[in-house]
Amino acid sequence: MQVGKSVKRVDAYDKVTGRAKYTADICPKDTYVARIVHSTIAHGRVLKIDTSEAERVEGVVKILTCFDVPDIEFGTAGHPWTTNPEHQDIADRKLMNEHVRYYGDEVAAVIAKDEVAATRAARLVRVEYEKYPHVLDPLEAIQEGMPVIHEAFPDNILGHSSIREGNYQEAIREPGLIKIEGWYSTPSVQHSQIENHICYAYMEGGDRVTVVASTQIPHITRRITAQALGLPWGKVRVIKPYIGGGFGNKQDALYEPLCAWLCTQVGGHPVMIDSTREETFVSSRVRHAMRSHIISWVRPDGTFAARKMKVWSDQGAYASHGHGVVAKGMGAFPQIYPCPNVECDCWTVYTNKPSAGAMRGYGIPQTMFHNESHIDDIVTKLNMDPVEFRRKNSMPVGYVDPFSKNELYDDSFNQCMTKAEALLNFNRKRKLYANQTGPVRRGVGMALFWYNTAVWPISIETSACRMILNADGSIQLMLGETEIGQGQDTAAAQMAAQVLGVSYKDVHVVSTQDTDVTPYGSGAYASRQTYVGGFAIAQTGRILKEKILKHAHRLTRMPVDIIDIKDSWIVRKEDGRRLISLETLATETLYDIKHSEHIAAESTYSVQSNAYSFGASFAEVEVDIPLCHVRLLGLVNVHDCGNLINPQLAEAQVHGGMSMGIGFGLYEKMLFDEKSGRMLNDNLLDYKLPTTMDHPDIIADFVENPEPTSPFGTKALGEPPACSPAPAIRNAILNATGVAINDIPINPDQLFESFRDAGLLEGE
Amino acid sequence: MQVGKSVKRVDAYDKVTGRAKYTADICPKDTYVARIVHSTIAHGRVLKIDTSEAERVEGVVKILTCFDVPDIEFGTAGHPWTTNPEHQDIADRKLMNEHVRYYGDEVAAVIAKDEVAATRAARLVRVEYEKYPHVLDPLEAIQEGMPVIHEAFPDNILGHSSIREGNYQEAIREPGLIKIEGWYSTPSVQHSQIENHICYAYMEGGDRVTVVASTQIPHITRRITAQALGLPWGKVRVIKPYIGGGFGNKQDALYEPLCAWLCTQVGGHPVMIDSTREETFVSSRVRHAMRSHIISWVRPDGTFAARKMKVWSDQGAYASHGHGVVAKGMGAFPQIYPCPNVECDCWTVYTNKPSAGAMRGYGIPQTMFHNESHIDDIVTKLNMDPVEFRRKNSMPVGYVDPFSKNELYDDSFNQCMTKAEALLNFNRKRKLYANQTGPVRRGVGMALFWYNTAVWPISIETSACRMILNADGSIQLMLGETEIGQGQDTAAAQMAAQVLGVSYKDVHVVSTQDTDVTPYGSGAYASRQTYVGGFAIAQTGRILKEKILKHAHRLTRMPVDIIDIKDSWIVRKEDGRRLISLETLATETLYDIKHSEHIAAESTYSVQSNAYSFGASFAEVEVDIPLCHVRLLGLVNVHDCGNLINPQLAEAQVHGGMSMGIGFGLYEKMLFDEKSGRMLNDNLLDYKLPTTMDHPDIIADFVENPEPTSPFGTKALGEPPACSPAPAIRNAILNATGVAINDIPINPDQLFESFRDAGLLEGE
Repeated sequence: MQVGKSVKRVDAYDKVTGRAKYTADICPKDTYVARIVHSTIAHGRVLKIDTSEAERVEGVVKILTCFDVPDIEFGTAGHPWTTNPEHQDIADRKLMNEHVRYYGDEVAAVIAKDEVAATRAARLVRVEYEKYPHVLDPLEAIQEGMPVIHEAFPDNILGHSSIREGNYQEAIREPGLIKIEGWYSTPSVQHSQIENHICYAYMEGGDRVTVVASTQIPHITRRITAQALGLPWGKVRVIKPYIGGGFGNKQDALYEPLCAWLCTQVGGHPVMIDSTREETFVSSRVRHAMRSHIISWVRPDGTFAARKMKVWSDQGAYASHGHGVVAKGMGAFPQIYPCPNVECDCWTVYTNKPSAGAMRGYGIPQTMFHNESHIDDIVTKLNMDPVEFRRKNSMPVGYVDPFSKNELYDDSFNQCMTKAEALLNFNRKRKLYANQTGPVRRGVGMALFWYNTAVWPISIETSACRMILNADGSIQLMLGETEIGQGQDTAAAQMAAQVLGVSYKDVHVVSTQDTDVTPYGSGAYASRQTYVGGFAIAQTGRILKEKILKHAHRLTRMPVDIIDIKDSWIVRKEDGRRLISLETLATETLYDIKHSEHIAAESTYSVQSNAYSFGASFAEVEVDIPLCHVRLLGLVNVHDCGNLINPQLAEAQVHGGMSMGIGFGLYEKMLFDEKSGRMLNDNLLDYKLPTTMDHPDIIADFVENPEPTSPFGTKALGEPPACSPAPAIRNAILNATGVAINDIPINPDQLFESFRDAGLLEGE
Repeated sequence: MQVGKSVKRVDAYDKVTGRAKYTADICPKDTYVARIVHSTIAHGRVLKIDTSEAERVEGVVKILTCFDVPDIEFGTAGHPWTTNPEHQDIADRKLMNEHVRYYGDEVAAVIAKDEVAATRAARLVRVEYEKYPHVLDPLEAIQEGMPVIHEAFPDNILGHSSIREGNYQEAIREPGLIKIEGWYSTPSVQHSQIENHICYAYMEGGDRVTVVASTQIPHITRRITAQALGLPWGKVRVIKPYIGGGFGNKQDALYEPLCAWLCTQVGGHPVMIDSTREETFVSSRVRHAMRSHIISWVRPDGTFAARKMKVWSDQGAYASHGHGVVAKGMGAFPQIYPCPNVECDCWTVYTNKPSAGAMRGYGIPQTMFHNESHIDDIVTKLNMDPVEFRRKNSMPVGYVDPFSKNELYDDSFNQCMTKAEALLNFNRKRKLYANQTGPVRRGVGMALFWYNTAVWPISIETSACRMILNADGSIQLMLGETEIGQGQDTAAAQMAAQVLGVSYKDVHVVSTQDTDVTPYGSGAYASRQTYVGGFAIAQTGRILKEKILKHAHRLTRMPVDIIDIKDSWIVRKEDGRRLISLETLATETLYDIKHSEHIAAESTYSVQSNAYSFGASFAEVEVDIPLCHVRLLGLVNVHDCGNLINPQLAEAQVHGGMSMGIGFGLYEKMLFDEKSGRMLNDNLLDYKLPTTMDHPDIIADFVENPEPTSPFGTKALGEPPACSPAPAIRNAILNATGVAINDIPINPDQLFESFRDAGLLEGE
């Protein structure tokens, strides 16, 4: 078996030794550097740009402004294209914009021979603005008389969608119902991946432009770049080397289109845009801040009669992934705890803030915080056990999502809760902490989550794969699905090895995607790659194997039916007798004077299914009330993501996600100056990311219920780990202190306010 | 029609603007530089190497010597592999050699952080030798008691082969025969391509090594590098960017294996070997110098009774392409003028000189000089017309080579001669120049050549191809066949466009070969690529087209049988009605939610045929006898290379070859110091290459007899242009002066000697 084992990462050695090449490592020696001039107002119009002083800086090659760019509006969301205009992403921005919509918008770009010249000159570009009023809060932005951010959306509402099940109004008339109501909010946070966005572009092949970029989605970025420049799509080539993380930030066309265009303006000479951390915070993408209002009508026995949810999502200045994010988040609400009478509404609202895009969890961490906090508010009110309440109400085995046709095949929620409960010793501790009174109190809390694997049927789920048999019997594996640090290449190698009967060490993954030669794959998002790519690997592997066995028949005379590949040998199935090594077969076949064949296989799998993925977080905290300080004592995540391809990599994935969940719950928040709209903490000193110093020994574990629709039995794991830690921590604090804190991060500021309101701070 | 048109080169714009990237352009910024320490004796053994002083040079990283290299002997010839040990190239060298065999052999390599440090340190490496006697002349080297260069070849004879047809000894007894006998020789020359050999290597993927190299044969270089390092072949990756010419010099593994190994000795850090011009002359490869002894027994009517040829070929120090070169050259002898009684023998002999490898024409320019000079010696003796003699004796229509099964399908020789005769006004001039007596005389001469396309059945002729349909209806084309300046990419684009019904501008050729992803193709040699690659392109194009039409059926409901692709539209065959554009089809298919397919096709064509290619050179000279100076007044080449894919590129190819032929005939020769074995003129100042200043208006023309075995009707053109100019010039000088000069180059030295011997120099 090549899958299900914790083999070493295929890129481990290169990454540890520094041999692994990232975009900055490979950009040509003579590359020009472009620095962007960002808007210093949150909303307005550029009247004039004076570049005369900047142009005098030695080394400046060219300065281009929002008045020079093509008159093309394009969308940046990293979704596969659809030819159905109704499902296309909103095209609401140009390469640089005269109408600036947030503090940090792109108004000009300086191209210079080096970074120093570019930076100096960028500072000397004088921009004259006509200022408009700005609005930073989505609930304000939808009021009458607010500034209009995009003319096509006069009410600033980018999208609205609803779910109606049963009859809410009728259901709430049932006698004896208890009404629980709350407002919950989650902040704008930023992915803060290690490698800031970077790309460089050059022209070749006459009129073709190549962009080398730190992106999760090379094939999609190719399409968007071509659209933004008004080029036929085949004229653009995107190359993705190793990248230093993305978490969804790079599931967007960021500066690739602008960089490509700048390059075309200097005769195709290489031009690089290497974002600073400050630019990454403000001018890449952020997580949608969301605010929910939830009402539940519960019977005294702890069952739901009716539920209602309203969510407002803060889009910021440009559409990017837009309404899909909150729509996905809201979609989880009626499914995780099915209830016959449900009303849901969500709105995505433009504001004059950095654009929100995809981020690990894609709306689910937000609405899971809202809903799982709300569940504990119910539990607290009803004085019930949070685990028991969830066992009673969560999605039952056999539940089918009417839209995606996803089915809960196993008792995953209960299995995950049982395992996590035991790992944290939850029940014992909950009893132990029941009646605390001192200034320092402990508590336990938990939360569930639900996540869809991949995006079918909202959008295509297609993955193509190519395999080549090398003359030594090893395999080249090409996929459009991308390694972004998560271990995709290793999982792919293991899956291919499994299908082909070779060791994963003999599968050489072509890690760099190059849209000129790499089969189409949508890329790293929606926790789709192992699931969707698995279909393509399994299918292409079968085709390659058929070709190999055909030659094995020629060389050994054994019928194809009775032979197989095992440990890189052609063997007789019956007794395992070794007939010819794959190496000999490959060499003999390539160099056969009459039957020479460069054995390769390529195929596309158009996946038409999707899979639920489930899990739970259980947390233990110690709260120092007077100090307004939370210490996280324990955090357990248990996931049912189906079969594990590589348990150690899966565990690492969960650990990273839990850390992100801790940051979401306790520390991270983008702060803005109300008056200017400028981000206040756009650096890693003022923006508090959690480190291992803030972590307990976090524990990841799994329930392996194989996903029947998947060739390798897998379902989502990339995003799920970040979905439930924050509400589990919030619920543990509630358990410890009795204070329900509905706005994260639960940092000392927030604690002070909440404890003060709850009358817990005696000094007040 | 996309073929047969002089469309612009696909790389024209990039090459003119300097955008085209060569190896030196793309090597990483922090690459180490390796400088090689070359042997300063022609034959001997390295006793000791003292690197202590060199190691003290700042910036030196590591110094490795012939005592450190793997104990593996390997062959460097750029032939496809064969699993038949009898047909494998001779493995007679290590990465660096203790037993040094020529002045310039590799004994050590200094790796440093920059070129200055590497060069300084290389000069400080002290090598102590045990000197052996050396031998520079092949006819001497085969004598008794000569130094043995390779122990496995005690007589220094690397190879010997013979042809026997009829009965020579009996045939020469025929009464009335005229015996014509001569010795002819051609010198060691060097390819002198613009870009010296350069490569750099780095490790990635754990234990894999990548070599980026200026090579004509990336897939073969991969195999040889792996063999030289003792690695599984899949552990080596070779990347070939644009290269600045090769002419066969880069149809050999040059420093790629050494560079790869050096890289593995410094932890996989990038290491570059960038050869100087001096190193390129001495330590890459050269053309085999050859000497022939030819006897013809001719009847007074100008027909052959019997012929005999002996050829000795100077291999230099290492086997490289070895005996195949002279064997091919000799093979032409009995075919171009079929004669019932023939005896041929050829020998390839090791000497203590730079290694001879492949060079444009692969033995044919040498033996064509020998034989075509000899033919004019016959013509002169018989007082016959050189054209008429050749019309009478050259290969007749319907002639079949018993070995390759090549057939002369058309009256190519006569057609070429007729055309060239007219273009040079040969007959009129020959009469005009018949009775000159002054010091300055003019003359005309001509020569034929014969060339095989590709190498079947000596070795495999296989070519694989992959095509991808981009979403805009354009095509990616991947081939293992390489662009080396000759226009391969353009011809391939035209052929693919022809098969697919699109414009060649919509075929994006992936010019860079990367053995990790590029389908197998043997590469640029044997004038094989258009012929052999054409099969792969035609076949793969048909497969791609079938896939496209299948989707066209789905989208238009029209049966596949009645539709076709024309001008990038799916059309109804009957009336040409446009049904759907290829762009729409491609986009709709890739993004179809249920039938998504990344349309691609890949296939190998194992070619089992070969084709003759023919032509003639006609030259006019003016000879200043007292000045010993030849002025070339006119040179015409007419080729039957089948259908022309791109007439302008074909013409350019012929022009370049004619220039090389002029250099071969009049100027170029590597000179060696007898005592030390050191090359005396290893630079472009002392080694006389012809320039346009030395050329008349050279004229290229064609006879287009389509080759029936070829999918595009093509046969060899890459090498043929260099095959016949030298003897045509020699014969023109003979015509002008009556002096037969049998040793080229016919430079002033040679002319002085010849004219003096002929009594033409009155001052003597």
